Amino acid sequence: MRSMPTLRQRVNAWFDHDLPSNWGGRLIGGFVALLIVVNVSSVVLESVESLRERHFATFWWIEQISTAVFTVEYLLRVWSAPDRISARFRAPVWGRLRYASQPFSLVDLVAILPAILGMLGADDLRVLRLLRLLRMLKLTRHSTAFALLWDVFREEAQSIGAVLFMLLITLIMSGSIMYMLESDAQPEVFSSIPAAIWWALVTLTTVGYGDMVPITPLGKIFGGFVAVVGVCTLALFSGLLTVSFMDQLRLRREQYRSLLRAGVAGR
Amino acid sequence: MRSMPTLRQRVNAWFDHDLPSNWGGRLIGGFVALLIVVNVSSVVLESVESLRERHFATFWWIEQISTAVFTVEYLLRVWSAPDRISARFRAPVWGRLRYASQPFSLVDLVAILPAILGMLGADDLRVLRLLRLLRMLKLTRHSTAFALLWDVFREEAQSIGAVLFMLLITLIMSGSIMYMLESDAQPEVFSSIPAAIWWALVTLTTVGYGDMVPITPLGKIFGGFVAVVGVCTLALFSGLLTVSFMDQLRLRREQYRSLLRAGVAGR
Amino acid sequence: MRSMPTLRQRVNAWFDHDLPSNWGGRLIGGFVALLIVVNVSSVVLESVESLRERHFATFWWIEQISTAVFTVEYLLRVWSAPDRISARFRAPVWGRLRYASQPFSLVDLVAILPAILGMLGADDLRVLRLLRLLRMLKLTRHSTAFALLWDVFREEAQSIGAVLFMLLITLIMSGSIMYMLESDAQPEVFSSIPAAIWWALVTLTTVGYGDMVPITPLGKIFGGFVAVVGVCTLALFSGLLTVSFMDQLRLRREQYRSLLRAGVAGR
Amino acid sequence: MRSMPTLRQRVNAWFDHDLPSNWGGRLIGGFVALLIVVNVSSVVLESVESLRERHFATFWWIEQISTAVFTVEYLLRVWSAPDRISARFRAPVWGRLRYASQPFSLVDLVAILPAILGMLGADDLRVLRLLRLLRMLKLTRHSTAFALLWDVFREEAQSIGAVLFMLLITLIMSGSIMYMLESDAQPEVFSSIPAAIWWALVTLTTVGYGDMVPITPLGKIFGGFVAVVGVCTLALFSGLLTVSFMDQLRLRREQYRSLLRAGVAGR
Repeated sequence: MRSMPTLRQRVNAWFDHDLPSNWGGRLIGGFVALLIVVNVSSVVLESVESLRERHFATFWWIEQISTAVFTVEYLLRVWSAPDRISARFRAPVWGRLRYASQPFSLVDLVAILPAILGMLGADDLRVLRLLRLLRMLKLTRHSTAFALLWDVFREEAQSIGAVLFMLLITLIMSGSIMYMLESDAQPEVFSSIPAAIWWALVTLTTVGYGDMVPITPLGKIFGGFVAVVGVCTLALFSGLLTVSFMDQLRLRREQYRSLLRAGVAGR
Repeated sequence: MRSMPTLRQRVNAWFDHDLPSNWGGRLIGGFVALLIVVNVSSVVLESVESLRERHFATFWWIEQISTAVFTVEYLLRVWSAPDRISARFRAPVWGRLRYASQPFSLVDLVAILPAILGMLGADDLRVLRLLRLLRMLKLTRHSTAFALLWDVFREEAQSIGAVLFMLLITLIMSGSIMYMLESDAQPEVFSSIPAAIWWALVTLTTVGYGDMVPITPLGKIFGGFVAVVGVCTLALFSGLLTVSFMDQLRLRREQYRSLLRAGVAGR
Repeated sequence: MRSMPTLRQRVNAWFDHDLPSNWGGRLIGGFVALLIVVNVSSVVLESVESLRERHFATFWWIEQISTAVFTVEYLLRVWSAPDRISARFRAPVWGRLRYASQPFSLVDLVAILPAILGMLGADDLRVLRLLRLLRMLKLTRHSTAFALLWDVFREEAQSIGAVLFMLLITLIMSGSIMYMLESDAQPEVFSSIPAAIWWALVTLTTVGYGDMVPITPLGKIFGGFVAVVGVCTLALFSGLLTVSFMDQLRLRREQYRSLLRAGVAGR
Repeated sequence: MRSMPTLRQRVNAWFDHDLPSNWGGRLIGGFVALLIVVNVSSVVLESVESLRERHFATFWWIEQISTAVFTVEYLLRVWSAPDRISARFRAPVWGRLRYASQPFSLVDLVAILPAILGMLGADDLRVLRLLRLLRMLKLTRHSTAFALLWDVFREEAQSIGAVLFMLLITLIMSGSIMYMLESDAQPEVFSSIPAAIWWALVTLTTVGYGDMVPITPLGKIFGGFVAVVGVCTLALFSGLLTVSFMDQLRLRREQYRSLLRAGVAGR
């Protein structure tokens, strides 16, 4: 006979995604997601001076209410952690601490910290206001697509690292050579190697702002060379990631097939 | 004995692409396509002031004639819908309504609506004039290549959505950080987070207009980081769509082969 | 007994690439290639005013000598065409005409035409001077890599066409919407739909010159949307061409293998 | 019985990567890598005038110490070369010369040459200062990822060459046509074909600085065409390199499998 669920078990049922989804959980999840979108929009729009002056009170209330909701949600999550399906959080103190140190729990904590620090007198710090934007990360909590993208990046970490390291060497080399070629003709623009490295970065990624442009013939020839190298780097990255995607997919398919075969053999 | 086709059946034969193509249908199709190209060119060129003044009458007549032709074509289509091969449109009233609510029939309706609304006195609305450009969509009606591209996009909707959502989060984060770093040095340019998000968008997509460029050392370092992330996002998109293309192709090939095998076994 | 080769046969041996390569042919080929490079460089550098004034005579002589050499080479080719291995050019008159109407023979003809037309008094026409640059195409005559790239493009002609058509529709739509959104705020910059289409093109291809940039909030939101669509289009192109490359490669490998198998079975 | 290692053998054990890695070698390697990073940063930052004036002595000492360390390391390497595992360097004189002419030994030599040439009175040459940046290449010595990237590039050298050659022809053609179209409207900007080729390069690689932008209708139409060709070239590069990556990977996998099979059969 199943015993009546305690209050803590019922609260946990809203947040534990190893349990079947229920109305309460979906409602709370949707409300929190909505509040995050409203809150992030509020932080972004507050930076526009005309809006800040006109709707100061609105922004303030959005912040207070969402902080309150996020705090309550966080406390409920931590409080009900021992009732989770996963046995890792069962111990009343250590289980809760372990739950609180999960990556997504830390994101939840970061989401309420700025407001709490703000109440403690650190209200004017800009960095704090931006930390509130980290609340957006709460939205990516249950996405499976993110997991796939993350797998691809982690799988290719070494190759991506190699390409980025190669990019760094190319940047320093290109910047230095361009500094040598252009600093006499445009001493104001190509004023130092770091400045020229900024040019190299803008060119290699094919962004091309146009704030720094070579004007000497040699500078233009070398600039063209750097632009072509940039296109090649882009192509290299595409190739690398495409191959990794395909490998991940094939792997998953093979795992699925062997599972299927094992199932058929077992019957 | 096949009975003599009625007038409505003969008209339907021009438009029903489940029937074998015939001279009448191809002629009408070609003429309508030509008229669409002429009409769209006319809308585009009419916006150039010097041309509008000189060729006002020409633009007016092109519009009137093409509207008349599109209206007649639309009415003939709807009128002859009950004679279509597909049984779904057989009922005289409901069949025609069902045909009229097909996506491409709606495009056809949109193509004539602006002119009709214009006659009813709403002539000066700019939006109406632009709606006429939707007539171009009529040209994509029978393209098989579009169907393939569409399949790829629909198949990858979830992944593309995840990338776009990640892009949005990256945009807001990058914009906010850049606003923090640059708003003191360039209060006019990086005037608010939304303005800085525009910079982030222009940089992440590697468009790089150059209307907003970081000038502080920290801003440039972070800007370079954002540009590199942009290149990675581009590469990610390429990889994702390449893999999807290959899957679609393999699927079609396998379907084709199993059809072939079934055919051989059946004989 | 092999008869002594006639003069025409010996001349043909220099140019006929179905025959084994020989010293005479390689020497002439190398000399002509060198002359093309010199000639093209001369055309390009002649456009720089300071160089044109200083080295007028040099440019003139390079042009005269290379025209003479290209003319003699062209005439020798056509004259010796009936001695080619391929039987298609055997007839003395029709064979030579057929040879002269081959794509690469036409390129050879175009390479000498401008100079000849120039002698007939049309010397000042700029277009003629540029036609001389077509001589570069002679350099691609024997490249196998070009053949592969060409195959990929031809194989994917339909898909590329569909993407380009979609691009065109997107361009006209984006330009028109941007014209509606920005023409009030920047009547000088977004002066007409064609002007706005130029903006759309520069943005969709992620070139981003920065000569036209939206400044209204709505314009920036829509501009960002167009930039993201541009990135997707780029990714789509990459995916399409990657898949096509792989198909071409697999095809060639399978042909190679079936050839091998047939050879083993035949022995 | 293994004899006591001589001093030269112990020194060689630090540098010979065919031997198992040991504490001495890792310590020296780490210290040299750190010194390279410090030295390269010093060269880059020295170019900023304000930093050069304030920290002149620091930059000077970093240079002297790192040159001394690199010199000692180089001499130790060459001196202990005859003790390497590889038999190619065994001869006392020829073996050392052969070791000194290895690519990475040459990089080591280049890393100390500028300072030595500087001591001989060539101190003010800018090129010498930049040569010091080549020390960065020492960091890539043992990377396996670089080896893979290098293999892909070498494998595809011919195709990449063909694409680059096609790019060059397209550049010259596009530049010349744009010069013809725009030089009348903007004689200052599109002043010569080389200038217009710079525009074509900036457009084809989708960098788009915006320093040169067509303004005539024909120029814009042609400019748009060039931008689209640039997007196609980018896609082509991606496709090419993706396919090559996949081939390299498949090759390695097949080699691995046949090794495995041979091992199983041999037992």
